Amino acid sequence: MIGNTFGHLFRVTTWGESHGKAVGCVVDGCPAGLELSEEDIQKELDRRKPGGRLSSPRKEKDRVIILSGVFEGKTLGTPICMMVENVDVNSKPYEEIKDLFRPGHADFTYWAKFGVRDWRGGGRASARETVGRVMAGAIAKKILSEFGVRVFGYTKEIAGISCDVSGMSSDEIIERAERNPVRCPDEEKAKLMEEAILKAKTEGDSVGGVAEIVVENPPSGLGEPVFLKLDAYLAFALMSVPAVKGVEIGAGFKVAKMRGSENNDPIVIKDGKIRFASNNAGGILGGISNGEDIVVRVAIKPTPSISKPQRTVNYRRMEEETIVVRGRHDPCIVPRAIPVLESMVALVIVDCMMMQGLIPRSIRSC
Amino acid sequence: MIGNTFGHLFRVTTWGESHGKAVGCVVDGCPAGLELSEEDIQKELDRRKPGGRLSSPRKEKDRVIILSGVFEGKTLGTPICMMVENVDVNSKPYEEIKDLFRPGHADFTYWAKFGVRDWRGGGRASARETVGRVMAGAIAKKILSEFGVRVFGYTKEIAGISCDVSGMSSDEIIERAERNPVRCPDEEKAKLMEEAILKAKTEGDSVGGVAEIVVENPPSGLGEPVFLKLDAYLAFALMSVPAVKGVEIGAGFKVAKMRGSENNDPIVIKDGKIRFASNNAGGILGGISNGEDIVVRVAIKPTPSISKPQRTVNYRRMEEETIVVRGRHDPCIVPRAIPVLESMVALVIVDCMMMQGLIPRSIRSC
Amino acid sequence: MIGNTFGHLFRVTTWGESHGKAVGCVVDGCPAGLELSEEDIQKELDRRKPGGRLSSPRKEKDRVIILSGVFEGKTLGTPICMMVENVDVNSKPYEEIKDLFRPGHADFTYWAKFGVRDWRGGGRASARETVGRVMAGAIAKKILSEFGVRVFGYTKEIAGISCDVSGMSSDEIIERAERNPVRCPDEEKAKLMEEAILKAKTEGDSVGGVAEIVVENPPSGLGEPVFLKLDAYLAFALMSVPAVKGVEIGAGFKVAKMRGSENNDPIVIKDGKIRFASNNAGGILGGISNGEDIVVRVAIKPTPSISKPQRTVNYRRMEEETIVVRGRHDPCIVPRAIPVLESMVALVIVDCMMMQGLIPRSIRSC
Amino acid sequence: MIGNTFGHLFRVTTWGESHGKAVGCVVDGCPAGLELSEEDIQKELDRRKPGGRLSSPRKEKDRVIILSGVFEGKTLGTPICMMVENVDVNSKPYEEIKDLFRPGHADFTYWAKFGVRDWRGGGRASARETVGRVMAGAIAKKILSEFGVRVFGYTKEIAGISCDVSGMSSDEIIERAERNPVRCPDEEKAKLMEEAILKAKTEGDSVGGVAEIVVENPPSGLGEPVFLKLDAYLAFALMSVPAVKGVEIGAGFKVAKMRGSENNDPIVIKDGKIRFASNNAGGILGGISNGEDIVVRVAIKPTPSISKPQRTVNYRRMEEETIVVRGRHDPCIVPRAIPVLESMVALVIVDCMMMQGLIPRSIRSC
Repeated sequence: MIGNTFGHLFRVTTWGESHGKAVGCVVDGCPAGLELSEEDIQKELDRRKPGGRLSSPRKEKDRVIILSGVFEGKTLGTPICMMVENVDVNSKPYEEIKDLFRPGHADFTYWAKFGVRDWRGGGRASARETVGRVMAGAIAKKILSEFGVRVFGYTKEIAGISCDVSGMSSDEIIERAERNPVRCPDEEKAKLMEEAILKAKTEGDSVGGVAEIVVENPPSGLGEPVFLKLDAYLAFALMSVPAVKGVEIGAGFKVAKMRGSENNDPIVIKDGKIRFASNNAGGILGGISNGEDIVVRVAIKPTPSISKPQRTVNYRRMEEETIVVRGRHDPCIVPRAIPVLESMVALVIVDCMMMQGLIPRSIRSC
Repeated sequence: MIGNTFGHLFRVTTWGESHGKAVGCVVDGCPAGLELSEEDIQKELDRRKPGGRLSSPRKEKDRVIILSGVFEGKTLGTPICMMVENVDVNSKPYEEIKDLFRPGHADFTYWAKFGVRDWRGGGRASARETVGRVMAGAIAKKILSEFGVRVFGYTKEIAGISCDVSGMSSDEIIERAERNPVRCPDEEKAKLMEEAILKAKTEGDSVGGVAEIVVENPPSGLGEPVFLKLDAYLAFALMSVPAVKGVEIGAGFKVAKMRGSENNDPIVIKDGKIRFASNNAGGILGGISNGEDIVVRVAIKPTPSISKPQRTVNYRRMEEETIVVRGRHDPCIVPRAIPVLESMVALVIVDCMMMQGLIPRSIRSC
Repeated sequence: MIGNTFGHLFRVTTWGESHGKAVGCVVDGCPAGLELSEEDIQKELDRRKPGGRLSSPRKEKDRVIILSGVFEGKTLGTPICMMVENVDVNSKPYEEIKDLFRPGHADFTYWAKFGVRDWRGGGRASARETVGRVMAGAIAKKILSEFGVRVFGYTKEIAGISCDVSGMSSDEIIERAERNPVRCPDEEKAKLMEEAILKAKTEGDSVGGVAEIVVENPPSGLGEPVFLKLDAYLAFALMSVPAVKGVEIGAGFKVAKMRGSENNDPIVIKDGKIRFASNNAGGILGGISNGEDIVVRVAIKPTPSISKPQRTVNYRRMEEETIVVRGRHDPCIVPRAIPVLESMVALVIVDCMMMQGLIPRSIRSC
Repeated sequence: MIGNTFGHLFRVTTWGESHGKAVGCVVDGCPAGLELSEEDIQKELDRRKPGGRLSSPRKEKDRVIILSGVFEGKTLGTPICMMVENVDVNSKPYEEIKDLFRPGHADFTYWAKFGVRDWRGGGRASARETVGRVMAGAIAKKILSEFGVRVFGYTKEIAGISCDVSGMSSDEIIERAERNPVRCPDEEKAKLMEEAILKAKTEGDSVGGVAEIVVENPPSGLGEPVFLKLDAYLAFALMSVPAVKGVEIGAGFKVAKMRGSENNDPIVIKDGKIRFASNNAGGILGGISNGEDIVVRVAIKPTPSISKPQRTVNYRRMEEETIVVRGRHDPCIVPRAIPVLESMVALVIVDCMMMQGLIPRSIRSC
């Protein structure tokens, strides 16, 4: 859990710069015997792709190649290295501003930390890095599906326009969210969000939003207190995704205004099992899953790359300058962030299930 | 970073149940040569103590004993084990409800995970566990002070009453916050908060709130992307504190409603250094500190232990029952949580400074 | 696996200096529901105690106190902190030589690393540190016994006198080894070893030896290649024990002189199971246990503390001097090292069984 | 330090099966600003290549491709992914024996652990896996060279024929060892070793040996007691290399027969510095480097793949059978193991230097 490696028993190491040769990941600790094809990975990668009027025109073909760990269509229990070559890369627009730090970006901080500058498209700090997360997440989701657990996400809010999914089934939420380019299950709100995004784009600006991720049907008992609590682990995973500035579980920040008698979820017996009558806890108590759906939300900042002129510094001349960021940028990254956020949640759940002893070393024993 | 151990180079392992013999921690990786006395630890422990009308009447004497790692008043570089014996413990009120799961507590989830029940005061899931965090945090703060870095916190909101500290210096915030039992730097708001807490208490209920923690004067370059980003690490650390349900950095959830042009902090030159004209980023860009103050906020839920009757389940009889939680409980834990939250932040900063190579193995070289 | 913490899922953190207040350990990740008493720990601690003419006259009472993690006679799944207070400590003999580095000891290297000196009995580098290992090992052994796995050790060689146990059953080896002060199952050789030790002692000198540790009836499938191989993990664990200078598995260094056709263990069917006709592999192939007994041997150096005059340096004056090390020292540490080595092996096996998913979170399910 | 990842601050993850698409590694935590080219890596890879009459005729072209982490000829501080495609692969000879477990190999244990069988050339358990180690080691060596530290190795013994390098300088040892196919610095002994290897080969058999690895001019203070001692870490690293069955430091197993007065290295002042008059300790005391050269030796077993008929089991039919292993195999792997062993030692030293704070995040500051 340091640098570019994530996880304890199910471990993912990602690598690759935005404009380097390739981006990829190594998944270590995957159970053996799991059926796995490049199609399983591609499917999720395609969900992360830009598309339509709302997002970056960069045509990321993003064809996954599995380099190791799979034999005769099944995982071997050995590390799975996957790679996507970087094609359609154009470093030109970045070259002009290579001595300037883009506001809202990691240009300055990478330079402060490492003393070097990879000015090509943000380098490792680019959201392109998340390709590795999504590939690993695809495997995690496949494992979860063997145990009847599903992770899904949708856009809760963009540019101040928020939607309400109460009353919708999970299937409905998923099906509706995937139908429109903003990934919002409420069609009407989706339209308003689209408009707000296009308006910002026209003005050379960008907008932020909120995404919600749900783990449906998780086992109870997940999480390793007192530090690796399930909610802490999820917060870690989600806050590590580019542009995320806040994470909340269940009722989240609303608890600040609630009374204990409102917030406590009554404990009841349902179908002979101990369950909860409400889910303010978001499925987690004392850092351990309680068997209810796990519900998390993240705040995503507006894309920092905007074409409006901004104040910045030329670090070679040590002078203040005005920067205009060209290139291809999404005016709102919430929709494309969703498969990434789902992936991080799936990684956490698989890792916690392994730590709790719920996933065997060979998946065929399931 | 699993179970009861926190940190990579500066590592803390905490131990102890609420009503067991003692609670404590082992701090491993502390630089040698640091002057350290029991008084340094006690000072912070005392800030965590209950006190006054607003909190639990349990008289936690909480005298720290340093068992190892310090010789002739200085740290040896070896593990520092510290302990506080549990005195004034009364398990009686818990015995009556030992077959019931308290709503909002971890009783059910610990049982689901481990198959056993420590009914005495919440056992390991009790907030008493945080004694170990505060002891370790006291050492972390002492190290930070050698480098001119300070971590402090205060109550931002309780029961819907929020305060604004803009215009106050750090010294003022700290000094004013420590002056009243709710740790709010705004005296007037502090009074209202107190009233709200007492009202809830009278009604057998409890209230939640928001705390803000600030790292003053941090170095830039802290954080280990792409997973162990500084914000991700802080979110992990803070979400692991009992009762925290949300974490945000800088502008936090507000970014969802902001435009890129508003949210991006302009980069400027101040005193010959690259700095930021605003701090929506909360001191962190791309997961790495940018040299501005680091600002985080957490949402703290209302104390789950309330005396109002609640629905729950008797797990031995597998029957629904009504529970009334007696015993000594704070109707609002925000004020007492602050030293704990500060401690977690301090642990993260020290660990990241070590990973960045900014703290030597022997502190005397500073 | 850094500093004073050992293990991945079954984790041990030890603490304490030789002449500090206490030595102890925290065991984290122990399954819940395991019956555990102080007597279980004390039994193993007593095997580590000095005794008889052959070892140090320091009377280490070494009474264990369990401070956390056990309730109603069973483990809770929470961290188990155990402590032994340091009594009968006499720092006097060390005070005279506190500016000198003892040859063969870690005095110089701790000073080089940390810039400080704990001259009291070796401080953290003292073999007294192993008290924590033995306490943790006692728990590991108890867990293993639930699964029919046994770890035992004996003295293979002292001062060039070696014994042969071929033909003896495990029960015989154990029973005979525990009967004499050198822990050698061959009574005649044991006598010769005793004599050699006493002779060295009389001459103000010390002797070394070899210990063998066996894991009886281990499951196959343990070990996590390609780095955390079972043999690599054992080598790590054993080489971390004070005074160990070599580790070998199965045929060990003898393989250098063997042909492949001699060394390869034929694979056969025994009782309907795949087994091996010989055990040159020492129970490990490709870093994974093969189901045969795991056999390791370590070389233990002669006690560095000898009363013969030796050349050394006074670091304050930066002058060469002659040192005579007084105090109470075992002229041969092989016999007392055995429970420590067994403990380290037991920790490794439990940790690997957990990683392989063979030990549930709650031991009652066994 | 689990599965396929090695290291704490300088971390290496290797991946790839013998007959899969490629083998490779990801190096994370490498300092930024280090000049690094594919040639730097290739140079070490070439030393690992088979060559001459003594080794496998498989023509491993092994051309490294750096996929990430390097920009404008310098490291970025981001993960460095490197890959070698598997060409000249012939799985035929393995197909005939795919239902048989090869004695001395990991076939059985991988199957026991993962429930699957990669019969193509040993899969992940093949020594081909070490390509990743050597690529990572090449970077580690390059870093060490910036600090005046050198790691080298040579063949100490093969088939019972051993050589003595006392009196030779490091330069001589290296230069002479690299001159002959057995990597033995004593020309005469090298000839005898060659003959013994060829004799074994003719007889369808194989031989083992001993390799010695030296760290020249290491800093003192390396190693993190009490568990991550430098010697323990080296033992871990070296025992994880395929075919290694024993590891010893300094005088190693000889200490068993030594007196304390012989084994203790006298401490002296040389050139105004505290040094040691002899080096039985192999440069390590109490698990921390003492500034003298670090000397380790490993026992390497005879290649398990031999063409002599052997007893084994057909696991599908569950019947005993006779196996004859065809294919291309080195009759002695000691010479080719040396760059692998050097790599593992270099990884350990770099990691320990980082933990001790001796390597900056940006190498240009050196």
